[in-house]
Amino acid sequence: MATLQDIGVSALINLFGAFLFLIAFAVLRIQPINDRVYFPKWYLSGERNSPRRSDGTLVGKFVNLNYKTYFTFLNWMPQAMKMSESEIIRHAGLDSAIFLRIYTLGLKIFGPVMVLALVVLVPVNVSSGTLFFLKKELVVSNIDKLSISNVQPKSSKFFFHIGVEYLFTFWACFMLYREYNNVAIMRLQYLASQRRRPEQFTVVVRNVPDIPGHSIPDTVDQFFKTNHPEHYLCHQAVYNANKFAKLVKQRAKLQRWFDYYVLKHQRSQKNPTCKLGFLGLWGKRVDSIEYYKQQIKEFDHNMSLERQKVLKDSKLMLPVTFVSFDSRWGAAVCAQTQQSKNPTLWLTSSAPEPRDIYWQNLAIPFISLTIRKLVIGISVFALVFFYMIPIAFVQSLANLEGLERVAPFLRPVTRLDFIKSFLQGFLPGLALKIFLWILPTVLLVMSKIEGYIAISTLERRAAAKYYYFMLVNVFLGSIIAGTAFEQLHSFLHQSPTQIPRTIGVSIPMKATFFITYIMVDGWAGIAGEILRLKPLVIFHLKNMFIVKTEEDRVRAMDPGFVDFKETIPSLQLYFLLGIVYTAVTPILLPFILIFFAFAYLVYRHQIINVYNQQYESCGAFWPHVHGRIIASLLISQLLLMGLLTSKEAADSTPLLIILPILTLSFHKYCKHRFEPAFRQYPLEEAMAKDKLEKETEPELNIKADLADAYLHPIFHSFEKEVPLPSSSSSSSSSSSSSEAKTHQEETAEVRVDKHETHSSSPVTELGTPFHHHQVYNYATSPSSHYASAYEQSSSQYEYHYNTHQYEEHEYRYN
Amino acid sequence: MATLQDIGVSALINLFGAFLFLIAFAVLRIQPINDRVYFPKWYLSGERNSPRRSDGTLVGKFVNLNYKTYFTFLNWMPQAMKMSESEIIRHAGLDSAIFLRIYTLGLKIFGPVMVLALVVLVPVNVSSGTLFFLKKELVVSNIDKLSISNVQPKSSKFFFHIGVEYLFTFWACFMLYREYNNVAIMRLQYLASQRRRPEQFTVVVRNVPDIPGHSIPDTVDQFFKTNHPEHYLCHQAVYNANKFAKLVKQRAKLQRWFDYYVLKHQRSQKNPTCKLGFLGLWGKRVDSIEYYKQQIKEFDHNMSLERQKVLKDSKLMLPVTFVSFDSRWGAAVCAQTQQSKNPTLWLTSSAPEPRDIYWQNLAIPFISLTIRKLVIGISVFALVFFYMIPIAFVQSLANLEGLERVAPFLRPVTRLDFIKSFLQGFLPGLALKIFLWILPTVLLVMSKIEGYIAISTLERRAAAKYYYFMLVNVFLGSIIAGTAFEQLHSFLHQSPTQIPRTIGVSIPMKATFFITYIMVDGWAGIAGEILRLKPLVIFHLKNMFIVKTEEDRVRAMDPGFVDFKETIPSLQLYFLLGIVYTAVTPILLPFILIFFAFAYLVYRHQIINVYNQQYESCGAFWPHVHGRIIASLLISQLLLMGLLTSKEAADSTPLLIILPILTLSFHKYCKHRFEPAFRQYPLEEAMAKDKLEKETEPELNIKADLADAYLHPIFHSFEKEVPLPSSSSSSSSSSSSSEAKTHQEETAEVRVDKHETHSSSPVTELGTPFHHHQVYNYATSPSSHYASAYEQSSSQYEYHYNTHQYEEHEYRYN
Repeated sequence: MATLQDIGVSALINLFGAFLFLIAFAVLRIQPINDRVYFPKWYLSGERNSPRRSDGTLVGKFVNLNYKTYFTFLNWMPQAMKMSESEIIRHAGLDSAIFLRIYTLGLKIFGPVMVLALVVLVPVNVSSGTLFFLKKELVVSNIDKLSISNVQPKSSKFFFHIGVEYLFTFWACFMLYREYNNVAIMRLQYLASQRRRPEQFTVVVRNVPDIPGHSIPDTVDQFFKTNHPEHYLCHQAVYNANKFAKLVKQRAKLQRWFDYYVLKHQRSQKNPTCKLGFLGLWGKRVDSIEYYKQQIKEFDHNMSLERQKVLKDSKLMLPVTFVSFDSRWGAAVCAQTQQSKNPTLWLTSSAPEPRDIYWQNLAIPFISLTIRKLVIGISVFALVFFYMIPIAFVQSLANLEGLERVAPFLRPVTRLDFIKSFLQGFLPGLALKIFLWILPTVLLVMSKIEGYIAISTLERRAAAKYYYFMLVNVFLGSIIAGTAFEQLHSFLHQSPTQIPRTIGVSIPMKATFFITYIMVDGWAGIAGEILRLKPLVIFHLKNMFIVKTEEDRVRAMDPGFVDFKETIPSLQLYFLLGIVYTAVTPILLPFILIFFAFAYLVYRHQIINVYNQQYESCGAFWPHVHGRIIASLLISQLLLMGLLTSKEAADSTPLLIILPILTLSFHKYCKHRFEPAFRQYPLEEAMAKDKLEKETEPELNIKADLADAYLHPIFHSFEKEVPLPSSSSSSSSSSSSSEAKTHQEETAEVRVDKHETHSSSPVTELGTPFHHHQVYNYATSPSSHYASAYEQSSSQYEYHYNTHQYEEHEYRYN
Repeated sequence: MATLQDIGVSALINLFGAFLFLIAFAVLRIQPINDRVYFPKWYLSGERNSPRRSDGTLVGKFVNLNYKTYFTFLNWMPQAMKMSESEIIRHAGLDSAIFLRIYTLGLKIFGPVMVLALVVLVPVNVSSGTLFFLKKELVVSNIDKLSISNVQPKSSKFFFHIGVEYLFTFWACFMLYREYNNVAIMRLQYLASQRRRPEQFTVVVRNVPDIPGHSIPDTVDQFFKTNHPEHYLCHQAVYNANKFAKLVKQRAKLQRWFDYYVLKHQRSQKNPTCKLGFLGLWGKRVDSIEYYKQQIKEFDHNMSLERQKVLKDSKLMLPVTFVSFDSRWGAAVCAQTQQSKNPTLWLTSSAPEPRDIYWQNLAIPFISLTIRKLVIGISVFALVFFYMIPIAFVQSLANLEGLERVAPFLRPVTRLDFIKSFLQGFLPGLALKIFLWILPTVLLVMSKIEGYIAISTLERRAAAKYYYFMLVNVFLGSIIAGTAFEQLHSFLHQSPTQIPRTIGVSIPMKATFFITYIMVDGWAGIAGEILRLKPLVIFHLKNMFIVKTEEDRVRAMDPGFVDFKETIPSLQLYFLLGIVYTAVTPILLPFILIFFAFAYLVYRHQIINVYNQQYESCGAFWPHVHGRIIASLLISQLLLMGLLTSKEAADSTPLLIILPILTLSFHKYCKHRFEPAFRQYPLEEAMAKDKLEKETEPELNIKADLADAYLHPIFHSFEKEVPLPSSSSSSSSSSSSSEAKTHQEETAEVRVDKHETHSSSPVTELGTPFHHHQVYNYATSPSSHYASAYEQSSSQYEYHYNTHQYEEHEYRYN
């Protein structure tokens, strides 16, 4: 157990570490050469095209020579605070703004409570002083003098702790209510202020029944013409393009080789050659550029054939479809109602925005979803409680003897003492570290197997799984020593009243551990986040070896994004720690508060300057955030009850029983009051927007706008591909997209460009079943509002999606 | 513990008792004088007007003299089986038909399993024979030789029991699935075949916001005209008529006195008098008939004033309204969608049918519902676990000493030995008996406080509470001796794995108790149900003292109804017993099967001949029935696991772990597959019916049909009341209603009668805000389909509702 000094030292070291990170960040960020690493968002949003420079010299192009800027190295903090919330929403989307509110919520909840707890509880605890007498028997840290452990059993002072717990719960609930209200209003306002977007008019329909003698499009058309005669417009069939996607992948590989040889050619000025055999080790030697050019040409031909096959073959048509309506009201009605007598057919729900769709999962037959969910549920349970078993097994293999057995030739090396000790210290931990590193990805894959069709939902599900993992293995695992499996075993064999007591007793003893955890994982982790070491190194490597043109440089940027599936569960863990320790060891609160404040600044800076939004869920994660804070409150109340019964505080403990009931009722009330706003689109709202639109644009043709909004992105990408590819041509399209985003007045031009592509695209030429019974009349709708806001963010995915970008998109979620 | 002989004797006694009941029933039912007690349904449905007689003599009017009919005394059984299911649906409603299916489901589940268990498990258990050795140590009944207790610990024979449990679960799930499917189809078919009914077009809207400067009707009108412009038709405001209802009650009291004196006058041929003072003991003596006539006249004047006040005063208008649409599609859409940005405003749900509405609860402010639910939740928990505490307190008071202290003058009496012993045996049990007798009513009142607005929902909620009570106090309470409170205490202090073990071990020992329970409560209870002793006595008392005319006799009939809130929970308890004992003591199954078969016959007979349906919920209780059978399966699996671990069957027990997971997944699947059909009206269905109607009746005026469908019944009743009331006039209206029900061709006439009432009724004269912006044109819609099926059952509640009937209706649910 650490004493107060130990913690002080640890805090100093960590503060110093974080400070070093910050200094490094402050220096690196003002170098022009790093500008694209630390300010990519501005490039993406088009407000910056080249690094800011201190002067015009050649050195000044790479290094900041303005010595004044080095003195104001912390000025990113006030800068991060400058932007108002509404600007952030416009600049980085509502999700980011609401994400930041989680941090301010933490500050608001814990700030006043910290003052209260420090003023009331610390004196109460210190004055009680049992631990002075027990000192010889128990090894107790100094910090325990400030905690509830210091209060004598059966003391009436526990009324103070219960009082603080009550006040804290009421305060937290009050703040939670206000915040839920605010977020719900923000969400509705955002939805109301959005311009026309395809998802407002579209509903995704799963489990379209297979009626013999009718094709799926006919069935869909007939069903919706019958049951939504007044508002049904058209629908977009979904194809099983997984084979085609594989071709796209292979083609992208060829493209990379081609690019590589072109680059080689440009550098060495001689024609590169390669061998055709296995791994290029033997076989006929050919001119690489010519060979790959030829290969790509052939591939393009095959792909266009495959593409035609996909679009024509009704067997590749999935029983899923995107149905569009002529009004938001019609779409909202269809999404919220039950369509068919058989509740497993014609399942409707609001369509996610096109860039949020996880296309692979649309091909999953609906019938298998129940089984998938069951299997994944069991797997997550096993993962959370038994993950140590395979790791221990791997660890037992990955020791020196195991290594020597597998690779006897290494024996002379491993016999060296310092290598031996290094390996012995390193190998067993390696398996665990690799596991923890890949865990979020594994959980995301699990969520994918569950079959959700929106990326945002996938991330929320993965976040939930990660939270359970952390709750059991970090929180409970640290409090009760032993693996999760051992905990499970002891929980199954203890009485329900014994469990909170067992955990409650150990809680105050682990305060020092968690303080250290907050500093190492929280403070230093956040400081590491702002430094962006990995993207920095990768960008410069790419810059050195690959980048030839300005457009390549744009592609070499890796802005990253708020990784909700990892960040939110960690955040919720900090909430849990703060809530549990408020009444027990209030000295932990300042550390939490510093974390929240610091993380708030850092993420605000990153969201403004770095991250690029992946999708917009309009804060759909808030109900989860709210729910888990409530769960933390319940956990803290139960544990405090357990702790107090172990202290034999029979007078005061029964007072706590009412608290969980009140908290649960509060949760139920909030769920009832706010959650529908996050799940369903109210008709009042839909009708108001429809009316406004009808008044402002009476001659609007929505059908044209909705035409291909929900076509699988690889089909779009193929349309854009020029017959003989080169890296510059594909990157020019993405640069033009980024320019389009910059200058909104240019969108009209871009749109025209898009329509031309369309009219010559194989889709329309083939006359495939797209059911837009009207002619495209893009050109005649110059006043179309279906523009700026949406195009700004999604045009790159939709219209200028080339294979590279598709690949990138796919790899990120595989 | 009982031996096999004991059980045999007990079974014989109970069979004999039940047989006696049946003989009594067989004799009583064929007496013409009892015809209205045992066949009221036929009178209500109009197919019978006077008792069947064996001959024309005077004696033959009261007693059956045809000796032949006495020999065929069991012929009610084949008679009960004669009617087909579709006829039952037509005759007694879908709820009754589906209720009967619960019994056949029991037969289908337990029949084959009984054969399997008796053939496989009983030989296995008998051959094992541990109990022969243990005999001296344990007091074990003979029946235990046939149960799992007889198998030696660690025996591999437990694989048989696990195998049977698996087979049984699969079989039960298969039958449950088939039955759920059947019931869902029956429900949809019934809904599809129904004629036009107001609830199909109507949505109940709660929490209408109070917009300053707008009256509630204006707000509603504006909101729905804006947000459902294509389908909104009209709405019916709801008034807080609780004060008016009180007046109606008082007036009914006066009416009863008036009737009493009129009767007295007729009998004695002299004018009765009464005193005006307290309880009629002193004061001025007046002529009673004149006095009450005068009083009623004054009262009617006051009521008509109060009525005008209610309808005019906007403060008495509740923020609840019934909104009607011009199509089923429009109503279904409105009921299933979210209307407002604020999810606590404009809450829509499908309207219950008018006779199913519990009007008092419409006045409950929506905001208090959460609190009410919380309070009732806690109360039910307390009631289930701590009900013994107040009863023990009352018992401690209600002993002889307590009685003597309260009433010392009784001392000489209570000192008598035989009175003393009688009181001592009787008093303590009295409190418990009174409690158990009023429990269903208490639970119904609790459900009312929760604020549900449909009587069917209230009954379902009360049934759920009753089930929890029985599960804890009858099932668990019998298995583990001790009060529920002691159980709760021990559960809180035992580990989760210990609890099933504790219960599991005692299960086989309690088999004899439950066999006796099935015979006493089940067999004899059902035989008592068919005898209808209480209605028989009351009918003959009424017949003797009150009844003057044929119409009075109709009112004296008490057909009763299927008491879902008591019957279904008891049934579910039998399911639980059968499911738990299948693998443990299979000898219990024949007793359960006999119960199901016998109860099926009895209820079939009662539904056909006796019960009058209260409301039609279209089998809305089935998901609960299904869910609780699944819960019973889970309980049985857990208990078997506990039992086997106590038998140290470590080889075989782990095999059982998969079973609860499979059962839960099955439940989830069924919930997903079938439950929406019980909650929401699918649009496909709604649209199909709308279309059909439009084709067959293009000139239909729905608005006229919907006009007053959802007016509070007391307003209807007042309309019908003639100025100077007499019992014969009010009963003539009810007789005309029963005639209307009989002869469907007469409905048109009845309707015209109703319209006349309308046009002269104060409602329309006052021009109160009913928002039927169209003139009533009932007369011009002779082809209206809004007739037979609905009027048949509800006209009495709607149009001919007189104060007596309202009273009756209210008392039953208070």
